[in-house]
Amino acid sequence: MGFDPGSEVFRVHEGGKLAVRSLLPLTDRESLSLAYTPGVAEVCTAIAENPALARAYTWRSRLVAVVSDGTAVLGLGNIGPAAALPVMEGKVALFSEFAGLNAVPIVLDTTDADEIVDTVARIAPSFGGINLEDISAPRCFEIEDRLRERLDIPVFHDDQHGTAIVVLAALRNAATVTGRSLADLRVVVSGAGAAGVACTKILLAAGIGDIAVADSRGILHGAREGMTAVKSELAAITNRSGVRGSIADALAGADVFLGLSAGHVPESVVATMARDAIVFALANPDPEVDPEVARRHAAVVATGRSDFANQINNVLAFPGVFAGAFDAAATTITEAMKLAAASAIGEVVAAALEPDYIVPTPFDPRVAPAVAAAVAAQARADGVATA
Amino acid sequence: MGFDPGSEVFRVHEGGKLAVRSLLPLTDRESLSLAYTPGVAEVCTAIAENPALARAYTWRSRLVAVVSDGTAVLGLGNIGPAAALPVMEGKVALFSEFAGLNAVPIVLDTTDADEIVDTVARIAPSFGGINLEDISAPRCFEIEDRLRERLDIPVFHDDQHGTAIVVLAALRNAATVTGRSLADLRVVVSGAGAAGVACTKILLAAGIGDIAVADSRGILHGAREGMTAVKSELAAITNRSGVRGSIADALAGADVFLGLSAGHVPESVVATMARDAIVFALANPDPEVDPEVARRHAAVVATGRSDFANQINNVLAFPGVFAGAFDAAATTITEAMKLAAASAIGEVVAAALEPDYIVPTPFDPRVAPAVAAAVAAQARADGVATA
Repeated sequence: MGFDPGSEVFRVHEGGKLAVRSLLPLTDRESLSLAYTPGVAEVCTAIAENPALARAYTWRSRLVAVVSDGTAVLGLGNIGPAAALPVMEGKVALFSEFAGLNAVPIVLDTTDADEIVDTVARIAPSFGGINLEDISAPRCFEIEDRLRERLDIPVFHDDQHGTAIVVLAALRNAATVTGRSLADLRVVVSGAGAAGVACTKILLAAGIGDIAVADSRGILHGAREGMTAVKSELAAITNRSGVRGSIADALAGADVFLGLSAGHVPESVVATMARDAIVFALANPDPEVDPEVARRHAAVVATGRSDFANQINNVLAFPGVFAGAFDAAATTITEAMKLAAASAIGEVVAAALEPDYIVPTPFDPRVAPAVAAAVAAQARADGVATA
Repeated sequence: MGFDPGSEVFRVHEGGKLAVRSLLPLTDRESLSLAYTPGVAEVCTAIAENPALARAYTWRSRLVAVVSDGTAVLGLGNIGPAAALPVMEGKVALFSEFAGLNAVPIVLDTTDADEIVDTVARIAPSFGGINLEDISAPRCFEIEDRLRERLDIPVFHDDQHGTAIVVLAALRNAATVTGRSLADLRVVVSGAGAAGVACTKILLAAGIGDIAVADSRGILHGAREGMTAVKSELAAITNRSGVRGSIADALAGADVFLGLSAGHVPESVVATMARDAIVFALANPDPEVDPEVARRHAAVVATGRSDFANQINNVLAFPGVFAGAFDAAATTITEAMKLAAASAIGEVVAAALEPDYIVPTPFDPRVAPAVAAAVAAQARADGVATA
């Protein structure tokens, strides 16, 4: 680490990673008068008279704003908008490469939730969807909720729902490969931030009844004091057996460890889990349990890293989710659309399941089209499609 | 006009006119880990520790936001953000094609000046410069002034300054080709909107002493009542001979007519202008005076149209102005930088001046580099360059 302008990572970042190009040549008077004045006035007038035509005749209907305030960037924390921009450029590149979608990074000079909501709502006519990124909890929940309420285009906080979708896909396949169904599993979630909250909710929605969530102070339960509103809500819908104490207490006999924090779980605790345990140690770059160690006790192990099997990578979800929402001109992304995305990701590898192959690799070209098709179909089924 | 999906102008607009592409291939694990996680974290950390590195390692330093609220679009007026988007996409395409700059259209769901200023300021860390576009007067003046005050990147309302720069370039050459200098000219400006105000100010700054400005109610003068603050300011710095009445009264004996409104000037009035008159009838698509008619009485005629000689087209200015400001990492665009841009445009054709060739054509490849070099040099001379 450190600034080394000669190193490859800095060299590939010189001048940034993105370019905006015109799809039309503007090389002569005729082309200029079609793409710009005076010809463009006909298109403007048509849209002014019938706003629905904006979908067909502007780029916004397949354009994602990747919005961040720079408060929760990777494992780096609150580094501000300028330093967050390389990540957002990378995210935009992923939208382009994996789903052929256009996207634009928007980093914000405010961390105030009201200001973020107002700002994104005011620029929203420029975009077809809003991907919120690397905004710290608990502000991220409120910001997403309010924008979903206010806008008639998809709003999707990827750190929550992208992770949740891929986790669900992987966990369902992990259950299958170990001869169980989701409903059989007792799950312990470590971390009650953006990913922990969203994963817990999607796993409940997918039929897992027994989930305990732990944060740095231990297991969430209804009687615990001093919790944020989000954690209180989580405590009320989880931990049906009323476990209290540390994450080690929860893991004794549990089927699944889902790590979404920076904590460390010792091997001795992993050893107390149930037979055929499933360990998803997703902290990056250092998993909560070393995957080699976890494999001594668990039947299936997944991480967030590309150098181990079973990488849980959001890129399996977000390109296809937005592509499907755009295909259907969906006004929102419903819970059922997220579940459909998870099913589609899991089904790509269903015929070839193995303990070390519960999710597709990030570069599997089947994934984004499958997710897009499932999401668009569910949007139509849910009545939120307008095309 | 009217919506005809089979016509060429609608066909070329299908799906919009722009694409965002990754400059790096993301085809394998290695490239992904350089452009995105984990490699990108090194770049983020370096920028967090030294914000000046954002210039070299993100795309923002050569990225323009083309911002509009859709209130004054072409000749169409207040058509709103969605209908304005095709124009902004076209503008972005021009930045790309004429100066190799990246740009992004941002259309706003507000027409409130405070909200526009706050919104643009909050998204500003995403961009290297702000091109304000098609925002109605007098709000455009306040919005630009406040953003210039608040931001340390170039803010440029093109309808004002792009027009003013090209008008000055053309008028200086028109004076030269008719054997005069700028200081010799008595000018009548028709229109006190964005372009009228900015043209008047740049012509005064360039040494034209005698300018009268007329709006739809007639000539601005210090004793006129009910003027906006901007018009009062304009009245105070123009009309030194105290002319009152209609534009026809002002044009009698004048050297220059500069039309920047939708009004019509009859041939009989043009006939009262001085010998070797200069007529810039820039209203689009219908010039204030038909150029064929104007030529019966004037030595030099210019319009805004591409199908007549001497097209006054902002594209001669804005690509090079931003490119030069970016080359110098200028924190603002000074008045002297605008004057330098005008000189550079005019000089491109100085050796080949004719009454029908007082400005380069929009596709002259010499223009943008010449403007950029002049603007960057002036930024350094003015002490606003940071690179």
